[in-house]
Formats: sequence, C-alpha cells, structure tokens
Amino acid sequence: MPKLWSETVEAHRQAVRDATLETTAALVAEYGLSSVTMSQIAKEAGIGRATLYKYFPDVESILIAWHERHVTDHLGHLAEVRDRADTPAAQLEAVLRAYAHITHKRPRDSEIAAFVHRGEHLATAQQQLRGLVGDVVAGAARVGVVRDDVPPAELADYCLHALAAAGGLPSEAAVQRLVDVTLAGLRPRS
Amino acid sequence: MPKLWSETVEAHRQAVRDATLETTAALVAEYGLSSVTMSQIAKEAGIGRATLYKYFPDVESILIAWHERHVTDHLGHLAEVRDRADTPAAQLEAVLRAYAHITHKRPRDSEIAAFVHRGEHLATAQQQLRGLVGDVVAGAARVGVVRDDVPPAELADYCLHALAAAGGLPSEAAVQRLVDVTLAGLRPRS
Repeated sequence: MPKLWSETVEAHRQAVRDATLETTAALVAEYGLSSVTMSQIAKEAGIGRATLYKYFPDVESILIAWHERHVTDHLGHLAEVRDRADTPAAQLEAVLRAYAHITHKRPRDSEIAAFVHRGEHLATAQQQLRGLVGDVVAGAARVGVVRDDVPPAELADYCLHALAAAGGLPSEAAVQRLVDVTLAGLRPRS
Repeated sequence: MPKLWSETVEAHRQAVRDATLETTAALVAEYGLSSVTMSQIAKEAGIGRATLYKYFPDVESILIAWHERHVTDHLGHLAEVRDRADTPAAQLEAVLRAYAHITHKRPRDSEIAAFVHRGEHLATAQQQLRGLVGDVVAGAARVGVVRDDVPPAELADYCLHALAAAGGLPSEAAVQRLVDVTLAGLRPRS
C-alpha cells in the first residue's frame, strides 16, 4: 500500500472514530444511556450501521473509548504544561493548576460520568496521572522547594485528592485558592 | 402504657433493628447483594419473616439503614473528639486525625460500599460533616492558627478531600503524615 493511501485510510478511520465518539456522547447526554441505539448513532454520525459495528460492538464501548480519549488528552495536556515550565517549582505549580482546572471543568453527576468512572480502563490512566504528578513532586523535593519528610508518591496522592475538591467549587478564583492551599501543604517545614 | 413497658418495647425494637442490620451486612458481604433474601436475613437474625417486614421493606433499605447508623456513629465520634480537645488548634488537629483514621479503616471496593455510597441519604451526612469540620476550621482561624485568606468552608472541603487519600494508604504512619501535610496547608502564610 503506498504511503499516501495508507495515510488517507488512517485519516478516514480516525474521522469515523471521532464522529462516532462525539455523536454518541451527545446522544447519551440528551436521551440517556438506555435509550440510545447503535442504529441511531450510525444515522446521526452519517455512517453505515455495518461500518459502525466494524469499529465498536456496542454503545457502552463507544462511551468508554470517548472517555479514554478525554483522559489521554488531559494527560497529554498536563505533560505539555510541565514541559513548558522551566524550573521544578514552576512545573509543580503549573501541573497542579492545570489539573485543578480540568477537575473544575469536568462534568459531574451526569449518567455518562457515573458510567465511565466505573470502568476498569481508568486504573491505568490513574496510575499514569499519579506517576506524572509524583515525578514533578519528586523533582521539586530534590531542589528543596517541597518537603522531603514525606515520600513523593504520598504527596502526589495528597495533591490529587485535595484538588478533587475543585469539582465542587463555584468559581475559578476559589480553584486558585485551593491550589494555593494545596501547595502550602507541600512546602518544607520551616 | 407504663414507662417501664414502653422502654422495654423500645429496647426490644432497637435490639431487633441492630440484629437485622448486622446480620444483613454480614450476609451481603459473604454472598453478595443479589443473592441475599429477606427470608435468609430473618432466619439468621432469629426473627420472624413477618416481623422483619414490619421494620424494612427490602434488603436494600436494611443496608442503607446499616450505613446510616455507621455514618451517625462517625459524626458522633468526631463531635466527641472535638469536645475533648481544649483549644481551637487542638480541636482541629484531633478532628482531622480522627477523620483520616475513619477513612483509612473504611472498607472500600466492596459491593456494599459501592451500593451505599450511591444513596441520596449521604447528602445530609456529608453536609453535617462539612459543617462540623468547617466550624472547627473557622474557630482555629479566629485565633490565628489557620489562614484567613481562604473561607473556612473552602478549607473544610480541602481537608475532607485531601484526607480521603487516607483510604489508599498502606499504614497508620502514612495516614499521620497525610494529616501533617494537610494541616500544613491550613497554616497562615508567613
């Protein structure tokens, strides 16, 4: 297969996949998980029903793929934010602010959220997130801007749990205060 | 009805209720929610099936009552711990340590936990918990041992979320470190 053709096929597959994910999430948000069918998704996404089944066996698997894409995007975003900052202290602050922002914006209490957060696929993403934050915390501890009397992995768990409070906060200003308080917990004891 | 008799009736009711709650929780933990029946509960608790139905309509409602009792016990314990400490700083530390300990010991990932945590009955308990911790934080802020640049209610949410990390920690020592870190986040900025 010539390279150009295989790239075109790949781009087409990606486009079908993307359209399917977005259509399904929108339909489930509007009508509820139990009333959305594969036929409805195919029709709304503008693809054949047989084609849809080549990609996904059922509505649930589409929702999980949709959520996995979101999670991957978020992890990628946090890695980018980390790489743009130039000191360990700045990396830590930037990653925690970005994570708190994601948590604040994340839709909650929806049927989709309840469904996807039950999934086992989350364990890997959770592990990657803890790894990313743990590394940034460890980097900041090595240069003395984070306390070294608590293991970095425990501090990362503390951060991720504390920042989960952002989900219930009413304003971006409150989210920034939460990050300030969380960061204060990480400082070396004077 | 003479007082003694009514007290005896009340004590009897409470005993039936307690036996039912404990029996149900034990049976569901052993056999799973879907395979435990009201007949089985009546038999194991040593009461008649008709009597059991006078107290509860189904297995789910028994589990919710069981969980509510636990939550009430925990709130009572936190209030006791608070009242035993004699300064606002000591109250704050004692309540946070007690809450982290409860969170650490709480069984997780069980079918019972997943079921009872879906319940709407938790909203009130959650509100009471936030109120109790918020008041203790506010008391400590008034005497200057907690930062006053963030509203006490936000600091209480931060504490409760941060201390939820205790659930995944491997040791009581790690739980104490988590409380230390969480408390450090609350200190006034120097």
